[in-house]
Amino acid sequence: MELESKTFMGRDFLLETKTARDLYDEVKDEPIYDYHCHLITSQIAENKRFADLTEVWLGGDHYKWRVMRAMGIDESFITGGAPAYEKFLAWTRTVENLIGNPLYHWTHLELQRYFGIYESLTEKNALRIWTTANDLLRKPELSVKGIFEKFKVYAVGTTDDPADSLEYHAAIAEGKAPIGSITTRVIPSYRPDKALNINLPGFAAYIKTLAGASGAAIDSVAGVLAALEKRLDFFVARGCRASDHALEYPPFVIAPDGEIEKTFQDALEGKAVSREAADAYKTKILCALAGFYAKRNIVMQLHLASIRSVSGRMLERLGPDTGYDGVHDREQSANLAALLDRMDRADSGLPKTILYTLNPKDYYPLATIMGGFQDNCCKAENRQGIRGKMQLGSAWWFCDHRDGMEEQMRILANVGVLPVFVGMLTDSRSFLSYPRHEYFRRILCNLIGRWVENGEYPSDSDKLREIVRNISFGNAKEYFG
Amino acid sequence: MELESKTFMGRDFLLETKTARDLYDEVKDEPIYDYHCHLITSQIAENKRFADLTEVWLGGDHYKWRVMRAMGIDESFITGGAPAYEKFLAWTRTVENLIGNPLYHWTHLELQRYFGIYESLTEKNALRIWTTANDLLRKPELSVKGIFEKFKVYAVGTTDDPADSLEYHAAIAEGKAPIGSITTRVIPSYRPDKALNINLPGFAAYIKTLAGASGAAIDSVAGVLAALEKRLDFFVARGCRASDHALEYPPFVIAPDGEIEKTFQDALEGKAVSREAADAYKTKILCALAGFYAKRNIVMQLHLASIRSVSGRMLERLGPDTGYDGVHDREQSANLAALLDRMDRADSGLPKTILYTLNPKDYYPLATIMGGFQDNCCKAENRQGIRGKMQLGSAWWFCDHRDGMEEQMRILANVGVLPVFVGMLTDSRSFLSYPRHEYFRRILCNLIGRWVENGEYPSDSDKLREIVRNISFGNAKEYFG
Amino acid sequence: MELESKTFMGRDFLLETKTARDLYDEVKDEPIYDYHCHLITSQIAENKRFADLTEVWLGGDHYKWRVMRAMGIDESFITGGAPAYEKFLAWTRTVENLIGNPLYHWTHLELQRYFGIYESLTEKNALRIWTTANDLLRKPELSVKGIFEKFKVYAVGTTDDPADSLEYHAAIAEGKAPIGSITTRVIPSYRPDKALNINLPGFAAYIKTLAGASGAAIDSVAGVLAALEKRLDFFVARGCRASDHALEYPPFVIAPDGEIEKTFQDALEGKAVSREAADAYKTKILCALAGFYAKRNIVMQLHLASIRSVSGRMLERLGPDTGYDGVHDREQSANLAALLDRMDRADSGLPKTILYTLNPKDYYPLATIMGGFQDNCCKAENRQGIRGKMQLGSAWWFCDHRDGMEEQMRILANVGVLPVFVGMLTDSRSFLSYPRHEYFRRILCNLIGRWVENGEYPSDSDKLREIVRNISFGNAKEYFG
Repeated sequence: MELESKTFMGRDFLLETKTARDLYDEVKDEPIYDYHCHLITSQIAENKRFADLTEVWLGGDHYKWRVMRAMGIDESFITGGAPAYEKFLAWTRTVENLIGNPLYHWTHLELQRYFGIYESLTEKNALRIWTTANDLLRKPELSVKGIFEKFKVYAVGTTDDPADSLEYHAAIAEGKAPIGSITTRVIPSYRPDKALNINLPGFAAYIKTLAGASGAAIDSVAGVLAALEKRLDFFVARGCRASDHALEYPPFVIAPDGEIEKTFQDALEGKAVSREAADAYKTKILCALAGFYAKRNIVMQLHLASIRSVSGRMLERLGPDTGYDGVHDREQSANLAALLDRMDRADSGLPKTILYTLNPKDYYPLATIMGGFQDNCCKAENRQGIRGKMQLGSAWWFCDHRDGMEEQMRILANVGVLPVFVGMLTDSRSFLSYPRHEYFRRILCNLIGRWVENGEYPSDSDKLREIVRNISFGNAKEYFG
Repeated sequence: MELESKTFMGRDFLLETKTARDLYDEVKDEPIYDYHCHLITSQIAENKRFADLTEVWLGGDHYKWRVMRAMGIDESFITGGAPAYEKFLAWTRTVENLIGNPLYHWTHLELQRYFGIYESLTEKNALRIWTTANDLLRKPELSVKGIFEKFKVYAVGTTDDPADSLEYHAAIAEGKAPIGSITTRVIPSYRPDKALNINLPGFAAYIKTLAGASGAAIDSVAGVLAALEKRLDFFVARGCRASDHALEYPPFVIAPDGEIEKTFQDALEGKAVSREAADAYKTKILCALAGFYAKRNIVMQLHLASIRSVSGRMLERLGPDTGYDGVHDREQSANLAALLDRMDRADSGLPKTILYTLNPKDYYPLATIMGGFQDNCCKAENRQGIRGKMQLGSAWWFCDHRDGMEEQMRILANVGVLPVFVGMLTDSRSFLSYPRHEYFRRILCNLIGRWVENGEYPSDSDKLREIVRNISFGNAKEYFG
Repeated sequence: MELESKTFMGRDFLLETKTARDLYDEVKDEPIYDYHCHLITSQIAENKRFADLTEVWLGGDHYKWRVMRAMGIDESFITGGAPAYEKFLAWTRTVENLIGNPLYHWTHLELQRYFGIYESLTEKNALRIWTTANDLLRKPELSVKGIFEKFKVYAVGTTDDPADSLEYHAAIAEGKAPIGSITTRVIPSYRPDKALNINLPGFAAYIKTLAGASGAAIDSVAGVLAALEKRLDFFVARGCRASDHALEYPPFVIAPDGEIEKTFQDALEGKAVSREAADAYKTKILCALAGFYAKRNIVMQLHLASIRSVSGRMLERLGPDTGYDGVHDREQSANLAALLDRMDRADSGLPKTILYTLNPKDYYPLATIMGGFQDNCCKAENRQGIRGKMQLGSAWWFCDHRDGMEEQMRILANVGVLPVFVGMLTDSRSFLSYPRHEYFRRILCNLIGRWVENGEYPSDSDKLREIVRNISFGNAKEYFG
């Protein structure tokens, strides 16, 4: 059998038309505004270098762990104690089977862009690639600082608990050694999930932690809000531009304050809280927070439709965030509309908002409902309107692949205005994820190139270049300010 | 950068194969049966001419208003008091950003077909296009009558409340000046939403209006049904061929008549009505109406899965139907199946039915459940069966674009019989919408052309021509009778 | 009009690239492991030959009946008493309209592969095809045995009630005449739906039947489980490798045993059982069965999201499974995750599991939630892990077409590991369905060919050939053992 094919992941990877290739040329060197990620700030502060491919690839990436498990690989080679090279081999055997999976493309983009390796990873060349890459990993070029420079990372938005001291953010901002002076802005994002999850274990303990951080006891819902606002101001002083909330679905239950207070006291005492009561508490806190965000022009991100830690057995064994989450399928429309409406009617109004969903069935509801809350300047007559105040977040997590990104952009374009989209983020724990921006830009340029070459949009190169540049970088920079 | 591309929206727009082009040649001059729209009949009766592009484009089109808001444009340039040309400029700046949005194609098809303008609209040529188009708008060729003739509009189905006097329909049917004699049939459609929405404000007042129109007091559910049937007969006498219902989801609650009567009396007295009680009332009325429709061979249209007026603040400011609706995501299958079954078991049987949904996730449920109610001639042994008695409505509103129409037709073809599909409708308030039928026909021919040229269906030109002609016009003409 | 086109359903049908064609060459002669079907074993045992195309095509295929009804054809020509040839003509007139429907391709693949007829079926050639095909049907080559040999059917998994005697399976396994010795394994599958459907009519009667088959009275839930386990052992002794469950949605209600026992006694006495109580009973039985399966290494298949017999009128007239089913749209994620988790935590652990859904909106939830239960060898330290323990079932029933299969494989590849997929099954009642495996393999090879030729996966012919061979046959053979 003789197989014909284009070069594997070559220069024109995913760029199927000349227009796509020309447009990608325009954006390939744009800076990166990675506004939502899970980088560990202590690793930035210490300008970390990684020991080997196993540490950098398999140290914390539950995307990879999941597919290794689907291959029937023993957990000792995944999160367990097997030697580093044996884990790498187990991963290699998995990679060869990831046809059609974004991990296949990410892995090879990383080999190409970080290590100059253009082969496909197989058991045959595994040892050679292991050696070559590990040698390079130890060089300054692949320290955190080296990576930030190489990929023109303009800013990263980390994800931080309100009780966090942000000490590493401070050290980085001050240019303290080891990282020293860098041009990348390392910006905290405010993620108060633990203050909302009144029905999860650990809530009462967390409230104490939050009280400690805010410097005042918390014995009421008002106390929670005061502490959250104080911490938000602390975050803002450290450069915070965005908040973030993870929600199975948008809560919306309106209850009297007294009832919510009772729920809160019950939770502090460790009593069980019904879903209804929890939703009433969450609705109140979320709406108050939206007001805090709006006053400070902080972007509100809502991440919807995940179901967490489906395997109780593995949760006990490995803890959360180890590859046991899935896509939820709750109804979203009614609650989302009611929640945004309540925030919008409040005095301070609705903040800039990004709606992400893990379930593609939600794209139409989210993209159309958010269209009912776009800016119309009626709250503050004298200011200019906000382009794309309400955003449909880029395809997220299980949807973060070629098909998923294209679907999200097509639906957004069909029911909204694609050129105001703030574009890609990595949502990643890894310093090796920056080529995902390249991946996104290629998919974006390819989508637009197809429309243009099919006669669906004029071949107006100035306008097209402006559009792809803005979605690649400019819109995010303007939106997050 | 040199961009290659096919001609922008040229002769072969969306026609990617020779078969597609040949098939489109066959249907491009077919008449239009626009069986569901929201044209204002007084404008037809007066043979309205439009003052300028702003009136005709931005006067009532909330699709456009939504995307302008997403651009951050101030409401004064959208629905407010800004000068007409400034509004047009604001729209122009928006249009340039509508890459991938059907409004981009509709706008330019309208410029081409109504005004002979083949450029893409930009800020640079905005003034010239404004002047040229406005001059043409004032000519008789672009009066309502001129438009109907130019586009071979065989029939339009307007959307009318049962209490409507249908005076303009009468005037038009009689060929009264100013419109005078026209060949287009202007047919009322019966939309009794207000008589069903027992849980919305204004219900009691509406029942009085309905009583007035029917000439008899309404003091019971039976009275509502008597009035609705009387008005339906009045509509039928004026040529009505179809009814229409807008529903978030198909109601299905069976309750004793006494309970439903109690709910009705409560509503007349302005008391609150629970969703459960409202659904019981709606189920009863809908089932009775289905019987009325079946007896008179009136098509029943159900429009499902919209969520209305999500922004309460803007509802207060601008009223309903101003661009603040979205896509709902309620479960549909169980209620829809039960509702259709109940109608089907009744003596008069299920009328011809078209099921529309605003949420593409519902296409599979709707297209397969309706397949359980296709005609099998068992109610009236001696008549011929109805081809395509149950219809999956064309991609609607937020789904009315290239991707959406193709998805709806693919699913319909995969689980049903595409050649019996009644095809496109505009659902529009605008006299400039007829090129949407062209858009649909191009997409239809392109889909079929791809199947044929890929060897998936024989290149049998007679059969293919019959199929595209029927879906473009013939099926609708036969279905609505 | 002159239409250009590729050969209609020719050698390269659905194979759009050279890579696809080369890969299809590799798998076109692989054996067939049809692990889930509804063949009637008595017909195998008697080595049935079919009288004519009407018997073999329209005798039991409700897929065809549905589209004939959509054409408005009278039921007498569908399931009624019209002469065989007239029914065939009615089907022919329907077929011509099935553009874009998989029945079009299945019908013509069957004409090509069973009868050597390469024309498209139309009214014009109907009589000639009728005569030619019927002559061939009477020959031994198209007896059951002849068909099994011609299509290299390695195994078929029938679908059987636990109370079934499996007498025909025994006769076939023993090579008794008329079928005699065959190489195809005819394997029973264990489908205990009737023992779970406590809220459907006939439950109490069925429990008596089950008791009769198991040889012991059943007067408690424990009795049901004992009988089911005994019958499962009987099935296993006859070669059973898989079980099967049809569920609208995964039940998950945990109730005390006493309550479940009460529900069971109520049901035996013919009392009504609430959905909640039924779900508690089902949850208990399902979890116990999962343990039985795990101990015996029996695959558990869950078929989700169908809604049955939507037309009550036609259910009374024709009974179940006559073309009146549809796609359900219930939420699945929360219950599915909880049910699998409960099974997984039990001592015997979760068996190998295949999750099918009739609603494409469920693919992401199912494919990701199942990823949380892939094998990690922690239950039995010394054995090798299972590749692809949790499977997303191939596109099923209303989704079993080109678009549906491609969607299922794309999503599986995007969030999982496509090369461990167990691939296609017919789910069919017809001996003429084997070309659906060809259809699937073409679609598979085409999907992979496109990825390769687009530079998204290396053109590594050994690995690619291994992947398509395994998905076509090898994985199923290994998985079912």
